[in-house]
Amino acid sequence: MTQTAAPIGVFDSGVGGLTVLRALRAALPDADFVYLGDTARLPYGTKSAATVARYSLQCAAALRARGIGALVVACNTASASALDALRAAHPDLPVEGVVEPGAAAAVAASRTRRIAVIATEGTIAGGAYQRAIHAHAADARVVARACPLFVALAEEGWTDGAIAEAIARRYVEDLFDGPQPPDTLVLGCTHFPVLAGAIAAVLPPAVRIVDSAATTAAAVAARIGAHRGAPGAAPVSGGGTVRWLATDGAARFAHIGSRFLGARIAADEVEIVDL
Amino acid sequence: MTQTAAPIGVFDSGVGGLTVLRALRAALPDADFVYLGDTARLPYGTKSAATVARYSLQCAAALRARGIGALVVACNTASASALDALRAAHPDLPVEGVVEPGAAAAVAASRTRRIAVIATEGTIAGGAYQRAIHAHAADARVVARACPLFVALAEEGWTDGAIAEAIARRYVEDLFDGPQPPDTLVLGCTHFPVLAGAIAAVLPPAVRIVDSAATTAAAVAARIGAHRGAPGAAPVSGGGTVRWLATDGAARFAHIGSRFLGARIAADEVEIVDL
Repeated sequence: MTQTAAPIGVFDSGVGGLTVLRALRAALPDADFVYLGDTARLPYGTKSAATVARYSLQCAAALRARGIGALVVACNTASASALDALRAAHPDLPVEGVVEPGAAAAVAASRTRRIAVIATEGTIAGGAYQRAIHAHAADARVVARACPLFVALAEEGWTDGAIAEAIARRYVEDLFDGPQPPDTLVLGCTHFPVLAGAIAAVLPPAVRIVDSAATTAAAVAARIGAHRGAPGAAPVSGGGTVRWLATDGAARFAHIGSRFLGARIAADEVEIVDL
Repeated sequence: MTQTAAPIGVFDSGVGGLTVLRALRAALPDADFVYLGDTARLPYGTKSAATVARYSLQCAAALRARGIGALVVACNTASASALDALRAAHPDLPVEGVVEPGAAAAVAASRTRRIAVIATEGTIAGGAYQRAIHAHAADARVVARACPLFVALAEEGWTDGAIAEAIARRYVEDLFDGPQPPDTLVLGCTHFPVLAGAIAAVLPPAVRIVDSAATTAAAVAARIGAHRGAPGAAPVSGGGTVRWLATDGAARFAHIGSRFLGARIAADEVEIVDL
C-alpha cells in the first residue's frame, strides 16, 4: 500500500491565494491540499502588520489541526507581515511565502535593475518587497505603489475592458515616466494576475510582468517538493485532492473563487470554520 | 451644574458610518458621541448575515461598556442583518438603524412607486430594503443591485471624474432602462454619498437620490433626541465631543475617515480596541 503524504496547507485572506494554489497543483499534481480562505476577515491588505500576523497564526493553527505537512502563505500581505512569526511558531514545518520568490524572480527578469512593485496598502507600507529585492540586488531601484482598488475590481470580475484599463492607467502609468523607467513590474498581490491583461495594456511594451502568484508558486512547489522527497519523508502520492475551508460565506467563496482557481468550486464542499 | 447626558454610541464596519455621524452631529450639536469603526473586520458588506450579527453584538457591547445612552447602527449591512438581535440584547437601549428611515424617505420621495436601491452585496442579498419599502408601500416596485466596487472607490477617494462615472454607469444605468423606470434611487450604503455626484451624472435627470446616510440620520436624531428629552431623561447637554474607537489601523482610520466625516480626525485620538 502506498503511504499517503500529508497534505500541503495553503492559506490566504480569501480567494486571491487560489491563483497560487492553481500553480501549485500544476507543479505538484499528485499532492493533496487543504486551502483556507479567511473570508470573514478579508481583506488583510488594509490591516496593520500586527493584526495580519495574529490572523495568520490562527490560520496556520487551523491547518495544522488538519494534519498538514507543509504550509504555503499564499497571500502577499501575510507573507510580508507574518512569515517570521509563522516559522517561529512552527519550527518543524516547512513554511513558504510568496514575497521572497517573487522578489527573486523580479531581479532575475530585470536587466536595468529598475523594478516597480504594485501590491496592497499593507504590503507596500511594510516594505517587504523592497527589502527582498534589495537583498538580491543592493543597487536595484524600486518604485512601489499600493493599488487597493485592484482587489475589488478582481473580485467583481471586471478584469478587462475600459474600466479595468482606466484604473490600471491611473495606478501604474506614471511609475514608468521619466528618463530611466523600470523594465519590470511585480504583481505583488495574488489578486492581480487576473488583471494582468489590463495592466499590460497600459505599460510600455518592453516591460516584463512578474506574476507573484505563478512564478513564486513554482519556486514554492520546488522547495516543498524537495523537502517532501527528502530521505525518510513520505512520498508525494496523494490523490491531487483539495479540501476547502473558509471562515465565512461558502457560496461567495465558491462563486468568486472559481474565477481565481480557473476551475469550479462547489459551495457544498466548502467547510466553514471559526478561527 | 448641568447634568451631562450619556453619549450616543455609533458603530459601523469602518469609516462609511462617519457620513451618518456627520449628519447626527449637525442635528444634535450638543450631544456627545462614541464612534466605533470595526476596521479590523471590515467590510461587513461581503460577509454572511450571521457573522455580521455576531460582530454587531460585539460592537454594541464595547460601546455599552463606555456608558452610551443610545445606539445608532450607522452601517446598512449591520442595520439589515443585526437590528433585531441588537434590540433583543439591549431592550433598555434605544437602537436605531439606517435602513428603515432610508426606506421611508424613498417612499416619500417617489411619485411612481418605482424605486431603485444600490448597496453592498450583503444588504441587497438580505432583502432588507426591499422589505422595508414594501412595508410602507405594498405596491412599490423595487429593483436592487449590489455595487461592491463603490466601497473601494470611495475609500480610495476617487469620488469623481471619468473612472467614477464609468463605474457608476456600469452599475446603475440599465436599472433605468425600460418603459417605466424608477424615479428614485436609494444610496443604501454609507460609503455611497461621497460618490453621489458621479452617480447623479449617469442618471436620467428626473431621478431623485435618497441619501441613506443623511436623510436617515435626521430621522434617527429626531427619535433619539425625543427619547433623550423624555420626562426623567437627562437633557442633551454634552460638549459636542466625539470619542474615537477602531479595531485596527488608527492612522488609516483617521486619514480616510476625515474624508467621510468632512472634518479632521487626529490619528493619536483614535483608541484601538480589541473585540
